[in-house]
Amino acid sequence: MSPDRVFAEPPAEPGSPAGLAPARARELFRAGLRVPTSGYSRGYAQANLLCVPRDLAYDFLLFAQRNPKSCPVLDVTEPGEVSASVFDGDLRTDLPAYRVYRNGECVGEPADVTDLWREDLVSFLIGCSFTFETPLLEAGIPVRHIEAGTNAAMYETDRECRPAGRLSGRLVVSMRPVPADRVADAVRITSRYPAVHGAPVHVGDPAALGIADLDSPDHGDPVEVREGEVPVFWACGVTPQAAVAASAPEFAIGHAPGHMAVTDVRDSAYQVP
Amino acid sequence: MSPDRVFAEPPAEPGSPAGLAPARARELFRAGLRVPTSGYSRGYAQANLLCVPRDLAYDFLLFAQRNPKSCPVLDVTEPGEVSASVFDGDLRTDLPAYRVYRNGECVGEPADVTDLWREDLVSFLIGCSFTFETPLLEAGIPVRHIEAGTNAAMYETDRECRPAGRLSGRLVVSMRPVPADRVADAVRITSRYPAVHGAPVHVGDPAALGIADLDSPDHGDPVEVREGEVPVFWACGVTPQAAVAASAPEFAIGHAPGHMAVTDVRDSAYQVP
Repeated sequence: MSPDRVFAEPPAEPGSPAGLAPARARELFRAGLRVPTSGYSRGYAQANLLCVPRDLAYDFLLFAQRNPKSCPVLDVTEPGEVSASVFDGDLRTDLPAYRVYRNGECVGEPADVTDLWREDLVSFLIGCSFTFETPLLEAGIPVRHIEAGTNAAMYETDRECRPAGRLSGRLVVSMRPVPADRVADAVRITSRYPAVHGAPVHVGDPAALGIADLDSPDHGDPVEVREGEVPVFWACGVTPQAAVAASAPEFAIGHAPGHMAVTDVRDSAYQVP
Repeated sequence: MSPDRVFAEPPAEPGSPAGLAPARARELFRAGLRVPTSGYSRGYAQANLLCVPRDLAYDFLLFAQRNPKSCPVLDVTEPGEVSASVFDGDLRTDLPAYRVYRNGECVGEPADVTDLWREDLVSFLIGCSFTFETPLLEAGIPVRHIEAGTNAAMYETDRECRPAGRLSGRLVVSMRPVPADRVADAVRITSRYPAVHGAPVHVGDPAALGIADLDSPDHGDPVEVREGEVPVFWACGVTPQAAVAASAPEFAIGHAPGHMAVTDVRDSAYQVP
């Protein structure tokens, strides 16, 4: 495994993160920049990553088919392949950070998984709700974690996914606080992006999802829910990793939550009318 | 294999085919009624069927993921299972007719595949464009094959699907003639149903798809294209069977084109806003 290469601050860039071309953003991540990717390469879709041995690939693809809101599959590689049709980079190095699982336990969060790579690994790229943040922003709906420059807030719920083969686990959600009078717009806008989690799975009371404390997300950073705002929950592409943790396959690699694969595909490609 | 049980005409029914509950329609098909299902159980989704040995299931699920317009997967069974979450019937008997493939060759079109069933068969239920015919009709857009009481017209094109594992083949399309001033509406309406093939893949010139003669469909019945109408082509769930024919796996079962699985799921469940 390569040593973690962490910058406390992003290096000075002539352009803003939002203005970086995907290839340029990936280059920075490959060089060691370790940051959540929300707001990067605005207008280009980002993706969750899950790499599993070929032996488990059918179970995972079926898990995704049975849980399409949390696991919308954008692309699947051949075993051992390190780039994808939607990602013209190197899946082993070009995400800011990874999570490595052995028997369901997260054993590390390296910046590079080249040394752990196996020729039998099939990589799944899964839609990410960061994709619909651009149209939310364009509609004047605030996205708090972008404003704050932090990672999104993600929570493990008490909702069981439909199992498939050896894989089962619970739904993970991301939360964005939305002003009460814009909730309907947020639903309408995001429902046009089914390939990147689509409409919310839940609006309001976190306890109904089994979330005890909004201030303590299971992944990412807490965000402030202000007076007059409602917490809105979308299915999250960390769900596959929750299934890995619950089902304990021998080996898997995922992205570190919020540290996504920046693809070469425009957000608009995943929009339905 | 059970003997083919064919009625020249549907038996007299108190209700119209459109008014039949899905369970009642399946009961008639199980009893031997052999008709195209377009127009049956209006308001309920119909599905294409492909059953393949477990050994080929990953390749097919990946083929479907890579060709989502032609192969939108609604449900996947466990090996050997004969009903599905969207289909509370018996997949071996409750479709009006099947096609049986050995080494890629269609060796029969029985009304029942109970005697051919294998415990390793995984069944895929795939969205069918019949689902969006109800909203087309409700919008006043004519659906000629329903008017005529015939099967839809389906054509094999010269467009290669993205291959997956051992499966490759060409896109199959269904065609509906649409008045020129309603083409935009037909696109708009059907694009809201991505799980049942969604928006057309082609509007107009059949030759551009490699279709030589609209009057000679490869599957189903020809339909009249009238003055002022444009042929509009949608991806078709017979595409998996074209892949079976081209790729010659040892064994597979499909529905007979146009003779679908009538599911228990409302069309509206597959609509996006």
